[in-house]
Amino acid sequence: MSRERLVVIGGDAAGMSAASQARKRRDEDDLEIVAFERGRSTSYSACGIPYWIGGAVDSEADLIARTPEQHRANGIDLRMRTEVVGIDLAARRVTARELETGREYEQPYDSLVYATGSVPMRPQAEGFDAPGVFGVQVLDDGAALIAELDSGRVERVVVVGGGYIGLELAEACQVRGLDVTVVDRSATPIGTFDPDIGAFIAEAVVRLGIRLVLGQSAARVETGADGRAVAVHLADGQRLPADLVVLGLGVRPNVGLAQAAGIPLGPSGGIAVDNRMRTQVEGVWSAGDCVESRHRLSGQRMVVALGTHANKQGRVVGINLGGGYATFPGVIGTAVTKVCDLEVARTGLSEAEAEAAGYRYVSAHVDSTTKAGYFPGAKPVRVKLLAEKRTGRLLGGQIVGREGAAKRIDVLATAIWNEMSVDEVLGLDLSYAPPFSPVWDPVLIAARKAFEAVEADIRQDVRDGQPG
Amino acid sequence: MSRERLVVIGGDAAGMSAASQARKRRDEDDLEIVAFERGRSTSYSACGIPYWIGGAVDSEADLIARTPEQHRANGIDLRMRTEVVGIDLAARRVTARELETGREYEQPYDSLVYATGSVPMRPQAEGFDAPGVFGVQVLDDGAALIAELDSGRVERVVVVGGGYIGLELAEACQVRGLDVTVVDRSATPIGTFDPDIGAFIAEAVVRLGIRLVLGQSAARVETGADGRAVAVHLADGQRLPADLVVLGLGVRPNVGLAQAAGIPLGPSGGIAVDNRMRTQVEGVWSAGDCVESRHRLSGQRMVVALGTHANKQGRVVGINLGGGYATFPGVIGTAVTKVCDLEVARTGLSEAEAEAAGYRYVSAHVDSTTKAGYFPGAKPVRVKLLAEKRTGRLLGGQIVGREGAAKRIDVLATAIWNEMSVDEVLGLDLSYAPPFSPVWDPVLIAARKAFEAVEADIRQDVRDGQPG
Repeated sequence: MSRERLVVIGGDAAGMSAASQARKRRDEDDLEIVAFERGRSTSYSACGIPYWIGGAVDSEADLIARTPEQHRANGIDLRMRTEVVGIDLAARRVTARELETGREYEQPYDSLVYATGSVPMRPQAEGFDAPGVFGVQVLDDGAALIAELDSGRVERVVVVGGGYIGLELAEACQVRGLDVTVVDRSATPIGTFDPDIGAFIAEAVVRLGIRLVLGQSAARVETGADGRAVAVHLADGQRLPADLVVLGLGVRPNVGLAQAAGIPLGPSGGIAVDNRMRTQVEGVWSAGDCVESRHRLSGQRMVVALGTHANKQGRVVGINLGGGYATFPGVIGTAVTKVCDLEVARTGLSEAEAEAAGYRYVSAHVDSTTKAGYFPGAKPVRVKLLAEKRTGRLLGGQIVGREGAAKRIDVLATAIWNEMSVDEVLGLDLSYAPPFSPVWDPVLIAARKAFEAVEADIRQDVRDGQPG
Repeated sequence: MSRERLVVIGGDAAGMSAASQARKRRDEDDLEIVAFERGRSTSYSACGIPYWIGGAVDSEADLIARTPEQHRANGIDLRMRTEVVGIDLAARRVTARELETGREYEQPYDSLVYATGSVPMRPQAEGFDAPGVFGVQVLDDGAALIAELDSGRVERVVVVGGGYIGLELAEACQVRGLDVTVVDRSATPIGTFDPDIGAFIAEAVVRLGIRLVLGQSAARVETGADGRAVAVHLADGQRLPADLVVLGLGVRPNVGLAQAAGIPLGPSGGIAVDNRMRTQVEGVWSAGDCVESRHRLSGQRMVVALGTHANKQGRVVGINLGGGYATFPGVIGTAVTKVCDLEVARTGLSEAEAEAAGYRYVSAHVDSTTKAGYFPGAKPVRVKLLAEKRTGRLLGGQIVGREGAAKRIDVLATAIWNEMSVDEVLGLDLSYAPPFSPVWDPVLIAARKAFEAVEADIRQDVRDGQPG
């Protein structure tokens, strides 16, 4: 009897979703599944780490969807604290190293799933690899940062990079009573939002009591006599004292092992995969933060490190490996986060992204409320839309507001997914009752305004004598 | 100079939206607009009346989006407390009666907008027209009911009919400390929900302290010596004492005037209109609760009395009258309400509606949470989906849960609008962050389950030897 052998590299969302789906479809006599994870945990919510650090989530265990024991009981030969250090594509085997013992061994495979995730971006400049500089990506990173914060020696924190993770970590430190500064090179935080929306984010960050240094980049980290970080120096010469430096510059796909083995990357630097998540190497699949996805609007390949994609992609790999058929349909850049009680969300293309993709567009925004204006608990919400010139096709949406605002982005995401024009969006039969929305949902008012902007733009073109 | 003359019958959402949009596009020299309203208010939120009765909304004024004075300042000749009592289609004129003085006069028109709304359903049985039996549809009805409740003579309230308005009014009375009973002929309240979802609604109603009598209809209202209602008698002989009887049986289109004039109705009993909201009579338009709309899934014409449709339809009429072009694209039956802190929402077809429309379907449901399960404040949510057999096309969705649950229905509404299949829904790039959803949004998990149900059904058909 020769069982087919599946090896999975990486035991978080993508890898274990793939393993679990394949196992669901093929039993142990038919398919052997060996999964390697260099950390101490499997199938955890990396996105939840900032809330664990900030104390909203009690313990590490809360973030774990499925433990190693559960995976093993499920028929997956899971090897924890074991890092894959080499892949021999020709021989179809990987080299694994047990981190505790240093023992190395080879493991043959028929199919391989590469799901190594991402690593925090770390500037190549002086001091960024010093003790006291923390990147937070895997659960063990969170534990290390909490241990540091619990040590009592940290008062001043500098977060380098004001993207989603940077702001979430900054707020977590602020909630713990620390003195927090965030440095970002953009004019407003979370640069994937348009600056007018980013301004609301900046305001919320400052209102939290966090110092925000914008339009500045970190040049180097100064270390003390013991080699630990003591300050961040900015490009303009400012020195920000820091007992702790947190990296919030985003992540890059963890592809070193793949590159060394010869698994081709795409233009974005992530593993190149097709619609079924197959790499360009026969028998090798990839999913999660390390792969690139197709953006359905720009047509570009891009790496989007987000647990929801990792789960879906892992599922697709596992179904295909299990003998079924599934594809991953791409992304449209939907994202949501919270800064204190400010909710912000986006989908589709920002203005800069639309321009880069060659679209011409009009934009419109509306300020409304999350419930009927007269209803108790109604909160402010701003919806901004980008619509393609002439066609009125919805290209992007951004929402900023208080409780109940942000999840409306999913309506816009679904509309963009279906290539709706803003006048089509305006006709949507969305739910209405005073405790849930104004009689015109903010999304619909925004669509109406965007439609008016599209029409005004056409009229202007006619007046200007532009060809149709 | 001969101005075109527009007459609008009805001064709430549909009528005044039409008037305002037409005015926006054509000035007073070009178009005269005369609007008749028999009540005391214009452009108010009828859906907000239960919250005014219950005290969540402070005053009548809060419910008014635009006052008569604002409309007049806008160039609309608005005649309040004036009822149109006749329409002469051949002569193109209406007969108006001033309710205070009884004076009648004729008003000629070139174009007419019929926007008379709806009236509460009132059983033809004994006593239902007695004093003490209240239907609540227009703002003045709300004022009358509040006056009655404030009189101090009401302790026991019987609500006949457990639909949206019935339950909202029941809760409003309950909140005021009254003893409330709701009678409904269905097995679960709000019969447009499937019974499994309705069971949650029933539970929430009972938990509020409201008595629920299901599977029973009201046979007659007993009146006292003074002619006022004193009890409701049920078909099975039960007698429910009542100081106040509230009608919650839904509404019917207010079409008596149109019928008398000869404006054709559709099969549903509402005014028949085309895509631009034109009736079958040249120069006569209609919008709001009195018209029928096309259901995009069943293909049926139906009357849906909902402020959001009334506003959209009025806008369409006004744009067309103003020289522009707009259509109303139909409805898919989206609705949402709250029973205490239970949120319930639906879109598309229920099981009974899908069967009636000739669809064969599978259903699936999932119990999940509104935020990541480990996140503080995560609330339970159930999502139920109906998918067409074989094609997997999403036919309907129902959501029940606590805070943050119900508005997710809009994603399903947008998906149904675009005729997505459940496996396409599963691929949607919806927003994810722990404060906003689990890594698989409940909507996506439900789509995954529905997709599995579609596939299982196909496999079963193959095993059964069914042709493809």
